[in-house]
Amino acid sequence: MSKRALVVLSGGQDSTTCLYWAIDRFGRDNVEAVTYDYGQRHRIELECARQVAEQAGIRQTELPIDTFAALGGNSLTDSEIDVAAGLGGSLPNTFVPGRNLIFLTFAAAYAWPRGIADIVTGVAQTDYSGYPDCRQETIDSLVTTLQLGMERKFTIHTPLMTLSKKETVLLAEKLGALDAMALTHTCYEGQRPPCGECAACLLRAKGFSEAGIEDPLHSL
Amino acid sequence: MSKRALVVLSGGQDSTTCLYWAIDRFGRDNVEAVTYDYGQRHRIELECARQVAEQAGIRQTELPIDTFAALGGNSLTDSEIDVAAGLGGSLPNTFVPGRNLIFLTFAAAYAWPRGIADIVTGVAQTDYSGYPDCRQETIDSLVTTLQLGMERKFTIHTPLMTLSKKETVLLAEKLGALDAMALTHTCYEGQRPPCGECAACLLRAKGFSEAGIEDPLHSL
Repeated sequence: MSKRALVVLSGGQDSTTCLYWAIDRFGRDNVEAVTYDYGQRHRIELECARQVAEQAGIRQTELPIDTFAALGGNSLTDSEIDVAAGLGGSLPNTFVPGRNLIFLTFAAAYAWPRGIADIVTGVAQTDYSGYPDCRQETIDSLVTTLQLGMERKFTIHTPLMTLSKKETVLLAEKLGALDAMALTHTCYEGQRPPCGECAACLLRAKGFSEAGIEDPLHSL
Repeated sequence: MSKRALVVLSGGQDSTTCLYWAIDRFGRDNVEAVTYDYGQRHRIELECARQVAEQAGIRQTELPIDTFAALGGNSLTDSEIDVAAGLGGSLPNTFVPGRNLIFLTFAAAYAWPRGIADIVTGVAQTDYSGYPDCRQETIDSLVTTLQLGMERKFTIHTPLMTLSKKETVLLAEKLGALDAMALTHTCYEGQRPPCGECAACLLRAKGFSEAGIEDPLHSL
């Protein structure tokens, strides 16, 4: 039996690149995606994820998580709070404590009864904006925790972990994922076409610029 | 500043004992509780947790988690599935993959902005019915994961980890928590008064019997 993989797909540039990485590595028929509706204020992300999965020909399951919005206090789920970068070493207010831990634990819970042992996530410690749950060390520890807690061997693949945004763009090109980039959402302000001015837009633009590739998002 | 503690309170015998353990250890004013509404088919658990917290004079926050029900496939959230014990070393179908990992990760996410570093849970590897996420080894690994993922020192207290049900009953007596036991819910069948025949009822009855203490639940 072929190994099967589950991609945590947000509808952004990174997770979309990971989806194509997984297709390349495991074969299209062995890949599926999970997308979380966690009350993100930019609902367009969910639509982007659906379109990316459809274009890729991948089965996608949307799972609700209503807990983060109930916890409150961050700018990703609370539209009353403006997005603000972390100052002086503090975490940005887009940081939702435990978000990636929860995403990956639920991915494992989804994978468990389906016999899927390979999970793919787009977290990256390069350009990681200071999110501690994106570091390889955290992911490694989580794998141990999941294996102990679910009595199942899991591998969490992080193909973008050490890549710069430029390298991620070059990887997307190599994997034939550039067309899909036109469907992805990055802008922190939730605008489409993107605002071009927020930290996420600037980081994306820098990556494409350094890779010498035009962002297909802008040629729509 | 006094240390503050967060108790994961389900409304059952074990977590209620832990609530009183935390009050004894940290002081009533420094303890609060979090209860998850995760779509459990026995809604009475939530009401029990509310009553336990109220009687103890503890602030309690109820947090929704709609993801487990969406994942499906277990007898705790799906009333179409009968509760069945694990046979031949397999896990019982009350096992929800990752449930305690998720509960404790959300507890940490709740604790994080509030400066709470001490989390208390009633998991026990004695009498643990084969749930791998109740083992000390899993909890230890999770603590490391949470600390790395949230850049915060956490302690997860598991006062019942190595206690038998008898010893848990004796601990509840010592902590003055026996009256609260009348409010707790244990029965897998969701009956109140309890069915007295399911695995959970039998385990509870055995504990009280061996401790030589009458279960206050039965004198209501």
